[in-house]
Parts: sequence; structure tokens; C-alpha cells
Amino acid sequence: MGNQHQPIGMFDSGVGGLTVFNELARILPGEDIIYLGDTARVPYGTRAAKTIIKYSLENTRFLIDQGIKVLVVACNTSSAVSLPTLTHYYGIPVLGVIEPSARQAVSITKNRRIGVIGTEGTIKSAAYETTIHALDPRVRVFSHACPLFVPLAEEGWTDGPVVQLTAQRYLTPLVEENVDTLVMGCTHYPILTSPIMGCLGPDVQLVNSAQETAKDVANILEERNVARPRASGGTYRFYVTDNPERFRKVATHFLATRLTQVDEIGA
Amino acid sequence: MGNQHQPIGMFDSGVGGLTVFNELARILPGEDIIYLGDTARVPYGTRAAKTIIKYSLENTRFLIDQGIKVLVVACNTSSAVSLPTLTHYYGIPVLGVIEPSARQAVSITKNRRIGVIGTEGTIKSAAYETTIHALDPRVRVFSHACPLFVPLAEEGWTDGPVVQLTAQRYLTPLVEENVDTLVMGCTHYPILTSPIMGCLGPDVQLVNSAQETAKDVANILEERNVARPRASGGTYRFYVTDNPERFRKVATHFLATRLTQVDEIGA
Repeated sequence: MGNQHQPIGMFDSGVGGLTVFNELARILPGEDIIYLGDTARVPYGTRAAKTIIKYSLENTRFLIDQGIKVLVVACNTSSAVSLPTLTHYYGIPVLGVIEPSARQAVSITKNRRIGVIGTEGTIKSAAYETTIHALDPRVRVFSHACPLFVPLAEEGWTDGPVVQLTAQRYLTPLVEENVDTLVMGCTHYPILTSPIMGCLGPDVQLVNSAQETAKDVANILEERNVARPRASGGTYRFYVTDNPERFRKVATHFLATRLTQVDEIGA
Repeated sequence: MGNQHQPIGMFDSGVGGLTVFNELARILPGEDIIYLGDTARVPYGTRAAKTIIKYSLENTRFLIDQGIKVLVVACNTSSAVSLPTLTHYYGIPVLGVIEPSARQAVSITKNRRIGVIGTEGTIKSAAYETTIHALDPRVRVFSHACPLFVPLAEEGWTDGPVVQLTAQRYLTPLVEENVDTLVMGCTHYPILTSPIMGCLGPDVQLVNSAQETAKDVANILEERNVARPRASGGTYRFYVTDNPERFRKVATHFLATRLTQVDEIGA
């Protein structure tokens, strides 16, 4: 691992990882962050595993070349299928979003019934089941793919009847299974927290993979003594592989501030 | 142009073009058809124009190599931005879905107020406005991007409250503009005909780009004397650039029959 002055690198298939960026910037205000959105090939959620691994390796290569000290795979689909490969190939710490969320879910569930929602790719990979069962084999995991949540979040339809009815249709089977904890297993979903909570009721606890991952990044930087002092003030760079204009537009649903500069690199 | 025994080639970014395939197979039952879905890079609707042109050229190259006699660009987004380039580079007839639909819309409108719905890419390109105005500059065109229609169609939510409310939200501005004709400017949309009609009421006529394009293909084969006799019976080949399993699954919402073989090629 490098030194404290190197940036944190993170990638997502598109804008979803900005929820992780938000949390990182909030709890680690001294860190420089480089964000890569692979917008030429988004969404990953419907792609085959081998394709997602290929794209993830290419994204990682770009970020490594920027001299990052730690890599955050801010995409559940990519974390689900490509993390072992990325960890194998590169010499820096690589953190995905699944393990932190799975750990948090296992630690807070009381009835050992955990729900997981995500893209088709994430759910099909069964990565959450595997990770949760490795932590506690007694937990029962109920998963459901929610393909419309990402387009709803990107369209900015985060309240109103369409998103409420969609959430109801996706989440009712999990509510009926009496889960007491639900993992939002897609980095887009935190901006749908309100309609999701509306369907679940107050007794179900929500795990936000963006928050849990950011905490893990903070811990690892601390442990390895490469955290940058809060007072130094972080700078941020955003790259996309296509259509920076649309990224800026959709990012307004995800970020509190307006992005001024987004650079395009080849896919 | 080749001979009658050569196949028709068509491509789309994914499954949407299957609505065009359906119409082609229905009105030209003697023709062999090769369908390519660029599922590794779907959707085109949110990509930059230069990216869509690059992908379209690659798709065309693959189909040309299969010895096709005519190319159908069964994707509105690709037709909107890449048709001039494709026509320029290749020596076979290339048909898009926009011109046939624009022509039909202009011929049936009475009040010269035409609505157009499509992906962000198609609407932003203003290809329908340009084509319609070239045919009749007195027509007023009202366009609206409907990004949620494609994921709804692929999820198979083609009736029920979610799609109805979504259609209402997208189409009300066009209804208020008093359009008497609406072009479904995305090859996914024909499977949403019923909820779309539900919002428009009986006085608005719908233009189905799949149907209009198939008629144009039939005409051009006839004119050039390379149509294959109906009695010969067509054979079909389906290729995708990723995840044939998902293509087969989603295709069930689009095709009357179940696809047995879908081959994967490199993107």
C-alpha cells in the first residue's frame, strides 16, 4: 500500500456508486477521490459474469494507473462476481460493497431472516447468500431482483405512486417472509430509501451498502496508517467512458452539489 | 444487391428489434432472417451519438460478413444517429425504422400535430422532427423521451397500474398538445400498445415503427426483384453479444414462439 497522499479510487458501472462517493466524502473529508463510471457499458446488472469481470479489470487498470492507494468497487454487481479476480491481480487493497453490508446485516438481525434486493446479476450470483452464510449459517436469506429500481432512480422518480407501487410489488414477497433486515444490494437504491421504507414498515431495518462500505474504507486506511488528515481537504475527479453530459444530469439526483467537470476516457 | 436466396440482416441494441422481426417474419414468411442483438452494450438510448455509430458499424460488419442482401436497423436510436454513416460505408440497401414511421405519420395526421416518443438518444437527436419536416414543413412535432418504457417492457410489466401511471405521466403533455397521431419511436414500445392506447384515447392514431419498416423492406425486395417466394419457408438465426440466456428469457415477452437457439459472438 502506498502513502497517505495518494487518492482513493472507485468505480461503478455508472452513477449508482455516487452514493458510496457521498459517504466516503462525508466521513473522510481529507481524502482525494477518483471516481470512474463505466457509462459506455452500463448497466452491469444484466450482463454475463465473464463480461462484468472483463469490464471491471479494465476499470481497475485505469484507476491503478492514476496511482490510487485503495480500490473501492462501488457496484454490487461487479463486487458480486469480479472481486476475487481483482484481488488476485492487483497489489492494493480492494474493497467491494457486499461483505461490509452482509456483516452489518448479520450483526443486526434478530430473527435471522434477512432480505436482499439488487440487480438481476447480483441476485443471480448469490453472492450475498454465500457471504452471509459464511458469517452465520443459521441465517435465512430471501432475495429478490428489482430491475426497475435503477431506471426509476436515474429518472429521478424517487417518490410518487409509480415508485411506491413498484416497491410494493418487489418487496411484498420479502415482507411476507417476515424478514427483519433488508440489504439494499445495489448502490443506486439508497436514493429510494423513502419508498422502500414505506413498504417495509418501521420494524424492518435497512442496510445501506454505501454507508457500510465507507466505514470499512475508513478502517482500512486507519489500520494501514495511510489516512489523510481531515483538515487537508479532499479533491475529487470524475471520469466516465461515455456521455459525460448525461452523467452530470443524472448525478444531480445522487449528489448534493452540482458536478462541474466530468472527463471522458475511452471504454 | 445480391440474390433472393440471401438472408435479411437486422440488428438492434437488444430485444426491442424483435417487434420488427415479428412483422418481417409475418409479411415475408419465405425470407431467411439473421437477427443480431448487441446485448453486451445495450441500451443505446443513453449513449453518445459517436458511441452508437461505432457500435452500429461493428454490428453491420458482422451481418455483412453473413452475406445479407439488405440491412434493417431495427433500433430507433441507431437509426436516428448512424443511418447516414452505414449507408455511406456499405453497398447494400440499409433501412432504418424512422423514415417509414415518419412517412406514415405524415400521411395519416389530419390536424398536422404529431407526437413522438422514444429513448433519450432518439428524442435528443431530433431525427423524427427532421424527417417529418422534410416531408411536410407545416406539421408540428411534439416529442417526449420515455426512459422507463424499455425496462418496463423487458420486465414484462405490460399491464397493471405501474405501466399505466408511467404512461400517463409521459403521455399527458402530448395529449394536452392535442396530437392526433403518435409515433412509437422505439422498437420496444409495440408491446406496450395497450397501456399507451389507454392514455391516448380512441381519437389518436398510433404509428408502429415495426409494422411500417417491415412494409418498406417488402417493397424494396420486390422492387429489386430479390424477394424469396412465400412458399419456401424462412429460417431464422439469432445472435447476441452477451448473455444469450437473458435474451431468451426476455424474448418471451416479444415473440409468440420460444427461442431455442441463440448464439453468442464477441462484442
